[in-house]
Parts: sequence; C-alpha cells; structure tokens
Amino acid sequence: MNPVELKRIAGREAIKYIENDMAIGVGTGSTVEQFIIELSKVKENFKNILTVPSSYKTETLLKNYGFEILDLEKKVDVYIDGADAIDRNLNLVKGGGGALTREKILAYNSRKRIIIADESKIVENIFQRKVPVEILIYGYSVTMQNLKEISLSAELRKSGEYPFITDNGNYIVDLQISEKEKPENINDRIKSIPGVVEHGIFIGLANLVIIAKNDGSVELFE
Amino acid sequence: MNPVELKRIAGREAIKYIENDMAIGVGTGSTVEQFIIELSKVKENFKNILTVPSSYKTETLLKNYGFEILDLEKKVDVYIDGADAIDRNLNLVKGGGGALTREKILAYNSRKRIIIADESKIVENIFQRKVPVEILIYGYSVTMQNLKEISLSAELRKSGEYPFITDNGNYIVDLQISEKEKPENINDRIKSIPGVVEHGIFIGLANLVIIAKNDGSVELFE
Repeated sequence: MNPVELKRIAGREAIKYIENDMAIGVGTGSTVEQFIIELSKVKENFKNILTVPSSYKTETLLKNYGFEILDLEKKVDVYIDGADAIDRNLNLVKGGGGALTREKILAYNSRKRIIIADESKIVENIFQRKVPVEILIYGYSVTMQNLKEISLSAELRKSGEYPFITDNGNYIVDLQISEKEKPENINDRIKSIPGVVEHGIFIGLANLVIIAKNDGSVELFE
Repeated sequence: MNPVELKRIAGREAIKYIENDMAIGVGTGSTVEQFIIELSKVKENFKNILTVPSSYKTETLLKNYGFEILDLEKKVDVYIDGADAIDRNLNLVKGGGGALTREKILAYNSRKRIIIADESKIVENIFQRKVPVEILIYGYSVTMQNLKEISLSAELRKSGEYPFITDNGNYIVDLQISEKEKPENINDRIKSIPGVVEHGIFIGLANLVIIAKNDGSVELFE
C-alpha cells in the first residue's frame, strides 16, 4: 500500500475519537495533513469543533480546509499528531518537521493524546532516529558543544545554506544518541543544559497510538 | 555607606581575579555596571582582555567604556555577575533585570563564576525573593497555569501596559515559591514544563561570592 494511503487510514481512524464541542490540538507533518483532509470531509457531522494548531504550517492547512482556529489559552480536549519513532512503551521521537516545542506544549496541555503513524515508525529503540533539540541562537556553539558530550554526534540543521529557524526563532540541532542510553536519563540531561529550549523525546505524552499497517489494517497501542 | 559605593567596593574586589589574556563573561545589572566602570579605570594594566556580554544592555555599556566584545563561541575564563538573592550554600536567584537565560548560559560555560553583591542580597532562603521564569509566548497562558501549580503565585512581568519581552523574544513570569520547597526540586520541576525556556534559580553556578558589607569591608564565600 502506498505511503499516503497508509497515512490516510491512520488519519481516518483518529476521527473516531473526535466529538462535538471539542477543542482539537493538531500537530504538524504529512500524516497529520491526511487527518485534516479526512476530517474536513465529515466536518458537517460535528458541532462546534475548534482547532488549535502547533505550527504556522498546520494553521494554514486548517484554514484552507475551513476549520476554525483557536489560540492555545486553556487545555485542549484531544491532541492528534504524528511521530518519527515510537517504541512499545509509547516513548516517541518527534520534530523531524522542526515544530517539536509547540507540539510538546500542546501535547502536555491536552487531556488525551493520539499519535497516528504508519508501521515504519515503530522501532525497538527510539534512538534509532535522530533527536532534534531546539536551542537559543545566543551561545549556540557552546550549547552544541555541551550536547555533543551526551551524544555520538550533534549537527546544526540547515535550510539550504543557512541554519533552519523554528517558529519560535531558534535553531535546531539533530543528535545521534547511543542506543544504550535510557530515554528518561537523556530527557533530563538535555533539558538541564542552559540554552536548550526543548527536545524531541516525548515520554508519557501518548495515550493512544494508531498504526496503519502495510496490509491496510489498523493496530492500536495504549 | 550608600548603595552605589557598596556595589563599587564589590566590583573593585572582583578585579583581583582578572588576568591578562582572559575572556571575561559579564552579567547584567547595577552591581555589574560598577564592576565595568572600575575595570575601565585600570584597563591599561591588562593585556588582551576580551568581554562577553550577557545582554544588549551590558554590551552597550562595555562598548561605551572601550572594551572589546567577543561572541560566546567557546568557554570563557571568568564570569562576573550580580544576584538578587544568595544563600549560604551559594544557591542564587537571578533575573530581576530579565536577562536570566543568557546569564545562565554564560555562567554554565565559564571556568570560574564570581558573584558580586552587597550585604542585602544574603538571605536565609532564596525563595524570600521571587523567581523569574522565561517562557515562550506560544501557549503562555497554559504555561503560566502550569507554573501556578508549583508556586504560591505567578505573575506575567509587564513593561508599562505591555508584557516585558526578553532579549530572546520571550515573556517573563515572576513566581512566588513557598520557602518550604527545596531549590533542587523546584529547579527540576520548573524545567520539566514545556514552554519554559529557563528560570532564575542558579544551583552550582557560583564558585566565589564577594559581599561588600555596610561597614565597607569585604567578605568572601566559596
């Protein structure tokens, strides 16, 4: 089955958890885009649903598909997002798209968090994927040096020849972390470095994972 | 003795720790300003000293007093800064001026950190002073709600009728924390809230504290 079709299956499945009068947090990425498209097709079945975007990109998509936008001013009812890597304990690595900080704020402030993905995102060890870290531009070279001390490599993300800039006006560093490390330890150690705004390891921030499998079936982890 | 004279005494004492060829990290605030003025008077006694400012305000002062400015690109030799509160374990509260994040990055990346202050900054418990927290503007009202859960009160800092904006483009929230709390616990709990960039509790980031006392004498803690 082609990748877009798998994302569509996962996105369509997430609609089962949407109810009238909900404020829906919406993540960023190609799987979430399929969720938005699928939800737009059945929008008339729901009353008073509002959407809280995690990025400018998602906000634009939501507006284009006719959704009403709400600022994040109180907890949202449900959060729908993709992930770059998911392990069997529902630990995630997110942030391939660079929106990890706003995604984490939104996930943290949601009552129920649903992750949608295709089978390829399930991993034995989340450190098989690189971990993005959002850092302040001030002192970024010393902050990168500090990040190198807890990783195998640390690379400043580029957009063409210039550093990539997040929606918050910061840089992203992509870390390769040893698979021997424990997610909880690395979580705390990265956060303790001054200059780090947030990172892409999500622990305890997924209540349900919807996986679209290559045979077209859906598997749920919770 | 008047407050400015006390700050001058503390600032002058710190000059004893400056050597030729040093990169000097420079904090922000009225005590640091006296250090800059005093150092400028004896600048010809030193060869090749460079200064790394923690704020635009300090950068302007350093330039006005004829110092050469260096970007923070590697660890600095010595860091000189003030503090709002200092306990006997050398825990600090900083950030009254709003530059706490850059100050913490600079302190963290310095080989020796010297805090200069007058006697009034010595406290039994650092939570006698409010703790400033720098937070992202995105989702700031939910982040403030999360900060309220670990404090007695959380107030958005204003500059006139608008929110105060840091050099990094973020907001500051001033927290009143119960004096029963342990600095280490509160340190970790604040940092674990997504949307928090940094906070003004400095633990393990002072190697030497120079206190100018009301009688004009100097006391050192280390």
